[in-house]
Amino acid sequence: MESGLIDSALARFRAVLGDACVLTDAADTTPHFTDWRGRYSGEALCVVRPGTVDELVQVVHICNEARLPMVPQGGNTGLCGGATPHAGRREVLVSLSRLDRVRAIDPDNASITVEAGCTLAAVQQAARDAGLLFPLSLASEGSCQIGGNLSTNAGGVHVLRHGNARDQVLGLEVVLPDGRLWDGLRALRKDNTGYDLKHLFIGAEGTLGFITAAVLKLAPQPTDTALAWVALDGPQRAIDLLHRLQAGAGDALNAFEVVGRTALEMVLQHIPGARDPLSVPAPWYALVELAGSGDRISDRLEALLAACMASGTVRDAVIAQDGAQALALWSLRENISEAQRIEGFSVKHDISVPVGAIPQFLEVAGERLEAELPGVRIVAFGHAGDGNLHYNLSFSDASDNARLVADAQVANAVVYEAVRALNGSISAEHGIGQLKRALLGECKSVVEMDMMRAIKRAFDPHALMNPGKVLPEYGE
Amino acid sequence: MESGLIDSALARFRAVLGDACVLTDAADTTPHFTDWRGRYSGEALCVVRPGTVDELVQVVHICNEARLPMVPQGGNTGLCGGATPHAGRREVLVSLSRLDRVRAIDPDNASITVEAGCTLAAVQQAARDAGLLFPLSLASEGSCQIGGNLSTNAGGVHVLRHGNARDQVLGLEVVLPDGRLWDGLRALRKDNTGYDLKHLFIGAEGTLGFITAAVLKLAPQPTDTALAWVALDGPQRAIDLLHRLQAGAGDALNAFEVVGRTALEMVLQHIPGARDPLSVPAPWYALVELAGSGDRISDRLEALLAACMASGTVRDAVIAQDGAQALALWSLRENISEAQRIEGFSVKHDISVPVGAIPQFLEVAGERLEAELPGVRIVAFGHAGDGNLHYNLSFSDASDNARLVADAQVANAVVYEAVRALNGSISAEHGIGQLKRALLGECKSVVEMDMMRAIKRAFDPHALMNPGKVLPEYGE
Repeated sequence: MESGLIDSALARFRAVLGDACVLTDAADTTPHFTDWRGRYSGEALCVVRPGTVDELVQVVHICNEARLPMVPQGGNTGLCGGATPHAGRREVLVSLSRLDRVRAIDPDNASITVEAGCTLAAVQQAARDAGLLFPLSLASEGSCQIGGNLSTNAGGVHVLRHGNARDQVLGLEVVLPDGRLWDGLRALRKDNTGYDLKHLFIGAEGTLGFITAAVLKLAPQPTDTALAWVALDGPQRAIDLLHRLQAGAGDALNAFEVVGRTALEMVLQHIPGARDPLSVPAPWYALVELAGSGDRISDRLEALLAACMASGTVRDAVIAQDGAQALALWSLRENISEAQRIEGFSVKHDISVPVGAIPQFLEVAGERLEAELPGVRIVAFGHAGDGNLHYNLSFSDASDNARLVADAQVANAVVYEAVRALNGSISAEHGIGQLKRALLGECKSVVEMDMMRAIKRAFDPHALMNPGKVLPEYGE
Repeated sequence: MESGLIDSALARFRAVLGDACVLTDAADTTPHFTDWRGRYSGEALCVVRPGTVDELVQVVHICNEARLPMVPQGGNTGLCGGATPHAGRREVLVSLSRLDRVRAIDPDNASITVEAGCTLAAVQQAARDAGLLFPLSLASEGSCQIGGNLSTNAGGVHVLRHGNARDQVLGLEVVLPDGRLWDGLRALRKDNTGYDLKHLFIGAEGTLGFITAAVLKLAPQPTDTALAWVALDGPQRAIDLLHRLQAGAGDALNAFEVVGRTALEMVLQHIPGARDPLSVPAPWYALVELAGSGDRISDRLEALLAACMASGTVRDAVIAQDGAQALALWSLRENISEAQRIEGFSVKHDISVPVGAIPQFLEVAGERLEAELPGVRIVAFGHAGDGNLHYNLSFSDASDNARLVADAQVANAVVYEAVRALNGSISAEHGIGQLKRALLGECKSVVEMDMMRAIKRAFDPHALMNPGKVLPEYGE
């Protein structure tokens, strides 16, 4: 690439955005060029920070004319390297953080229109201020941005009840790879006028364009919630409990997370103040939340759990008696990742299978891993109500982990084979990014890969959007 | 087109399907070439009835080689002519009716795998037999087929609670326009591995390929429902009531339909056995259904309606005391279309606006129509909880309808202008088909039309799928 072209592009960015919003000094750009876990690092020509959609449109036009690839970035909290520059090419990192307005809220339509750079927490707060609920909820909600949540089709703890990020979207505004603006900001519950375009951009991880704003659905704010920590004999009991709760509480079932004993022990060891809610250890736990309006949710949860204890589905259970206790129970679940980070290296997986197949997955994968990597420690937890487990491997003795680093391929092969045998997914909620790009072709048919490439070519013929992410062919 | 090519294609169809499944006699083909209302009629070379997906694949290959356009048809119950041949070209009508197996049901995953030709009622029944609910529900459910429901992204009376047809889909199997089979039959609640392809085919009205099978989500079967017929002073009261119920009953609110007095009177006049549930007429009514599991739904509905009567939101209400009464109330709503058919000609609209904008739409459109077509009678009813109204125009004196036929353009212009001013949709749940094809470009931006065309070209470069439907450019 000619340096003249680059200098000219930088000068044009500065003319559009002002010097302060075109970052080239390492001190300014480094936080954008590396992901928060420090696992992905790349170089880019600069970081540009458009403050309006019109400024972004101008940036994209400049990039098109100079054929400069673009990397969209929100809160940079992704887990698969989807928002950091790709090492192989010189790119323009486009931060959406300054597009952070709540454009409108319409309580009568239970909808909100927000720009991509709003943090998830800001969207939740705006909804709450209007007496409504934006149900998407995940650990990084204070810093992740809604544009990134939509681009990765984020999951979280309320998918069971409210669906994934894509299920919250009524309309989108997108700047296409050629700089044209698509105004699809409709706030309608029903609209059957042609192809559904919004779902293409949701989950495309910025490879088809920039999501700049969205109209999101809001839900009624539940007036009453109840939370229980439930001890179980094993994963099959968790699934049995899930079905009992779904039959008995219907839509009031708001979250159903499982935690393996190993995961709990790691939290108890590393997180200050964490304590085991029950006196006798159990191999598995479920964290169960009911939420509703105008009904005695706590009584219902207590009655359902009592029936499940009587029938032997549940070993023991404790129901949070106040907000502080509820927070303590949730923090056991939410601190698992942090406890693992403190503990050290682990090989992580984010898999899904049909909900009822979770026990089979755990059995098959566990047995094979023990055969291949004797003594390996499995930290399994997550969104069992959605068939989604975080399934992480390490050795209790950190000195053994060198073996795991060397044998990561073996471990991955075992996990992915177990997933494949159950028609599952190797990335349930974290996406593909750079991390799983090479794997995509292995878990998809030739036809499906062709369909994705056809869409990529149709929307981004010059392959300028987020190279090196998702599709193996785009970005060397 | 050469007759030799056609004869050869017919011979090859017969070789694949057998003579009995290649229909050319008018007596056999006529029911397929005309829609059920008799509004759309076309010619096709033949009707082919593949009995397996492999047979369909072979049919599509033959059509590709001879460049014969294909028209997918399910139950032929559509309202926009999307499933009947287009007059301008000689096409092959592909009936999916024989692909009617329930392939699998997985209660542990609350999912069912069905072929395109299953009637909606058969899918509902299979779910019920497994103790679960398939919530999609519409008037034609006994004869419409699930492939058509998905291809048109059908709506119905439970969208408020469960979403549109697309929201019920976990995975799809599709035969692409070139005859390749895409096996996207995943049964996962979460899967973030690349672009979401299923949503492209859902609602594409058969212009991008043949949906041959789907994995559908099932819901818990509610154990308790309660239904009320509610008299209201006007549309704003309906929206007020909706919000009171959403705040007070949350997800238990299962249906919220509105019926204008004119619509009710037409049912009372034409449908044998129909009677007004209340002694004093009101200008508007809402039909409200609550559903849930393990909670006293009737008591909750009664308490909520009592509070709304006390505050003046509701004028009067009657709660169904048994199944027969509930059926009678539902039939008042469900017989509106039939009563209109008996009454005679009307100009029909299927519009949506943001939910809170319904009163404004009714006021603006009503005033302008009265100015343009004095004395016009407005039959308005439908899914107010989704912002979706069926809005139909006629004159009480049938002899005046000649005026309406002549002035249909004027009437349409008024309605569409009111829709546009509120950022609404000219087709909320019925789709585009042939009926609204010419209008699509008027209600979409140039960019959005370009995006749709790019997808069409990417998937169907020879423009063989369902010409004359949805996109104005495809099919003269």
